Amino acid sequence: MFQTRLEETAAQVAAHLTHVLDGYPAHPVTDAMRYAVQGGKRLRAFLVMESAALHGVDPQQAMQAAAAVEALHAYSLVHDDLPCMDDDDLRRGLPTVHVKWDEATGVLVGDALQTLAFELLAAEQTHNNADVRVALVASLARASGAHGMVLGQAQDIAAETAGRPLTLEEITALQANKTGALICWSAEAGAVLGQADPTPLRTYATALGLAFQIADDILDVEGDAAKAGKRLQKDADAGKATFVSLLGLDGAKQRAKTLVLEAEAALSPYGDAAENLREAARFVISREN
Amino acid sequence: MFQTRLEETAAQVAAHLTHVLDGYPAHPVTDAMRYAVQGGKRLRAFLVMESAALHGVDPQQAMQAAAAVEALHAYSLVHDDLPCMDDDDLRRGLPTVHVKWDEATGVLVGDALQTLAFELLAAEQTHNNADVRVALVASLARASGAHGMVLGQAQDIAAETAGRPLTLEEITALQANKTGALICWSAEAGAVLGQADPTPLRTYATALGLAFQIADDILDVEGDAAKAGKRLQKDADAGKATFVSLLGLDGAKQRAKTLVLEAEAALSPYGDAAENLREAARFVISREN
Repeated sequence: MFQTRLEETAAQVAAHLTHVLDGYPAHPVTDAMRYAVQGGKRLRAFLVMESAALHGVDPQQAMQAAAAVEALHAYSLVHDDLPCMDDDDLRRGLPTVHVKWDEATGVLVGDALQTLAFELLAAEQTHNNADVRVALVASLARASGAHGMVLGQAQDIAAETAGRPLTLEEITALQANKTGALICWSAEAGAVLGQADPTPLRTYATALGLAFQIADDILDVEGDAAKAGKRLQKDADAGKATFVSLLGLDGAKQRAKTLVLEAEAALSPYGDAAENLREAARFVISREN
Repeated sequence: MFQTRLEETAAQVAAHLTHVLDGYPAHPVTDAMRYAVQGGKRLRAFLVMESAALHGVDPQQAMQAAAAVEALHAYSLVHDDLPCMDDDDLRRGLPTVHVKWDEATGVLVGDALQTLAFELLAAEQTHNNADVRVALVASLARASGAHGMVLGQAQDIAAETAGRPLTLEEITALQANKTGALICWSAEAGAVLGQADPTPLRTYATALGLAFQIADDILDVEGDAAKAGKRLQKDADAGKATFVSLLGLDGAKQRAKTLVLEAEAALSPYGDAAENLREAARFVISREN
């Protein structure tokens, strides 16, 4: 059930983003935007759709928010892959935007995908109540800007030249910013759209986000580059602190499992209706990419 | 009067942006954001404040929108200056962000300044009516994304490798996207905040934006690099079509003057109250930077 829903959501959000971008002026930058938003697990979109379903939100409205967070995530990947950042030439098994086009296109595509995220949230299709739409804009800005994702990315880059490996506390804070904030936004979005209390979903997503990142570090050591669709062992090669280097492989796996139990427990107010979200939590530590 | 108001607005918007960024986590990226939003004529902020004054909007609310458009403009400058884009090392008389810090910081600062623009507009301080706030978010997204500013920037880069100079029609369309859309948004913002018809201000700003760009091309040929605070004659050196190369120096000056008359005429519904905006139109074709 979970795997089917994840794949359905991935197909739907890809189709919606393609549909939206087909309304944009024809230009190589638009082509590259369409390319950059394809592929991926779409975990963030899935969290939006499932949390929205828990609150009886119209799926077409939720899809707008799901597409927004995927556009924002895609922007961050395109910019992260740039030569002056992580310098990656492979993403989701395909050449990165700056490799397939050029660096200027990579910068512009990322810029325009960020704009698209806010454009989607502000559109009437997202919710008939402007207070809800503007709350989604404000919270996505907080999650992704210099107090969220961008701060985490900057902390990650700074860690490489810090002259010492990060502590567990530092790396936990870094990851909460870099990937956790957007995962939290995604899970909370359904409650915001349903004008309900987002606290249980926030607790769920905070544990989920950390488990996700620990699993990423485990995959970086144990994973198969072909399945992951990207270069592995980068962090170990760079001598960077990771959850695996700090906790050991077994310790990291144990910590991830505990976090998944925490995430599942947070969903108790929703009963059986949240089973897909519980499965999502188990999935993030068992995935191969 | 106009010059005083322009300088007052510049000081106020710089102070407001500094105040907002002081609430952000301390980090070199935040320092670089603070650096990137300093200086400049603040024409866009001025247009917001003056158009807001015409509609009796609370200046503190208008200042939020003025700061938003200046943050967005600053993001576009930081990214445009990157080595893979225009590769400029001087901006507003100071080293560009990627020169003073590094390229990764330039990418991240631009990203975070774009986010800041939407964050400011979505905040309750901008307007007590969420419909107004979300309308400002939606229109800024349209003005700045892949159907506005980013499209214009991409068209500008593409023009360099097109193998032929652009026609007057093409360069007019390019500039309407690259700089015109944001100037229009700024002038219209006051009407949107005042929940009034933005048509006269849109007509005014469309003419103003084109006059501004023609004046930029004239400055690029006739200007003083020290006063401009940036490298000049770049377009001529690159063999790019400009309004001067297409219309001749006298033709370009005549066209800019006609546009200023058009801009002034569009403000007739506002009578004498719009005198500062009329002076702004005359200013854009007489400025030295």
